[in-house]
Amino acid sequence: MRLPVTLFRDGVGTERPDTVAVEEPLELRLHAPGGPLPLGVLMRTPGHDRELLLGWLVSEGLLPAAFTLDPDPENANVWHLRTPEHARLAAGARLAVSSSACGVCGSGSVERLAVRASAPLWTAGPLPAPFLAGLPERLRAAQPGFAATGGLHGAALFTATGECLVTREDVGRHNAVDKVVGWAQAHATLPLTDHLLVVSSRAGFEIVQKAVTAGIGVVVAVGAATSLAVETAQVFGVTLCGFVRGDRLNVYAGCERLRS
Amino acid sequence: MRLPVTLFRDGVGTERPDTVAVEEPLELRLHAPGGPLPLGVLMRTPGHDRELLLGWLVSEGLLPAAFTLDPDPENANVWHLRTPEHARLAAGARLAVSSSACGVCGSGSVERLAVRASAPLWTAGPLPAPFLAGLPERLRAAQPGFAATGGLHGAALFTATGECLVTREDVGRHNAVDKVVGWAQAHATLPLTDHLLVVSSRAGFEIVQKAVTAGIGVVVAVGAATSLAVETAQVFGVTLCGFVRGDRLNVYAGCERLRS
Repeated sequence: MRLPVTLFRDGVGTERPDTVAVEEPLELRLHAPGGPLPLGVLMRTPGHDRELLLGWLVSEGLLPAAFTLDPDPENANVWHLRTPEHARLAAGARLAVSSSACGVCGSGSVERLAVRASAPLWTAGPLPAPFLAGLPERLRAAQPGFAATGGLHGAALFTATGECLVTREDVGRHNAVDKVVGWAQAHATLPLTDHLLVVSSRAGFEIVQKAVTAGIGVVVAVGAATSLAVETAQVFGVTLCGFVRGDRLNVYAGCERLRS
Repeated sequence: MRLPVTLFRDGVGTERPDTVAVEEPLELRLHAPGGPLPLGVLMRTPGHDRELLLGWLVSEGLLPAAFTLDPDPENANVWHLRTPEHARLAAGARLAVSSSACGVCGSGSVERLAVRASAPLWTAGPLPAPFLAGLPERLRAAQPGFAATGGLHGAALFTATGECLVTREDVGRHNAVDKVVGWAQAHATLPLTDHLLVVSSRAGFEIVQKAVTAGIGVVVAVGAATSLAVETAQVFGVTLCGFVRGDRLNVYAGCERLRS
């Protein structure tokens, strides 16, 4: 989106148009017998909204076996979800709020994740460290939005042989990941055995959580990893690389999947 | 937190300890006649938890006039909130979920914010652009956690005369802002007329939203601004600066509060 901006440099201001990342809320409405109810609201960059919602449903453990997912005919920021499993989803959405809030501690969060996810399968053998170190550069090259705005996070899905399957951008780093997971769901490639997730951002708990629920065994982040992300990666056997830039990377968990 | 990490450089791995940012969930429990109920869960870096919760209550428009806020004696990640206004807070928490999800669009989010907040007051007169451009460097100098981990966001509160009142860090950029707003609440300085908020991160809708609810008239961000952040700043008369680095800054809204 182009906006007028005043650029001050050395104290002197000049007006010019600038490109900023678009941020708008997206609402997912679940249709139930008692009427529609809001299942979730995501502050996101418009585009690939179906994939975002599919990926979010996967990440939350809410994806139904049978459903329809349609945009509202009048409001591009509203989507409608209809499924015979509406009661499970409504309960799951309530549970997501309350269960993330019972006897909370770091380990508790990991344990609750374990209830609905198993360790990702990895059959492709160890990967060369220089191969991993080069992935962020390939993601960056495929990020037109970041180059234009500096305000968009990127996520990409790679195969173990180095093929880039999809890249997505969003103002929210979690959304970017949900968009690539939703792409995989739409292409019937879940679980993502022998696939790598590359993110332009840091790796917190939720990024690793999304990888685990999608069956992704290797996560490569340009930024730092948090303590809970490392703990989660260790528990689920996810290889977690952080500060991956140029010729270097830090491996916080699952080092056995790397070779020199 | 110190963790063992394998550092690969030019394909060669060496083990060494590394410092990572700590991330743990914090639960706020509201005590009501029917039993305690979870009001919110924040994935945060432990430390200044009372300020974080106070700031979050301010940002959500939920802060009661009278209350007690106490840590759980056994679980450092749980805090207890007791207030005669428990019914309003419980309803407000439900409303926060459902109202952010009704007829959603960008403008709608701004309108809902308008229900509970008014435009920040600014009496201090225009600020020199070089003064604003230099604030992120002063925040960075006060960020020990970022220097150690590269994984923490910072937020700071400055007066219009350049005094730095408080800086806080967190894995979550929204939490860092809530911690400085909570500090202000604890020191009875709300609303923050003639104060500036400086963040080491990007400025999305929620960062500007938190500034508005705290009465802050100038927001300075190291990173990019989003479209909805700009719209919100324009509606509420907040001066919003982005990409503030070295000798340059972009002004997305409220340029009249700057001078060369």
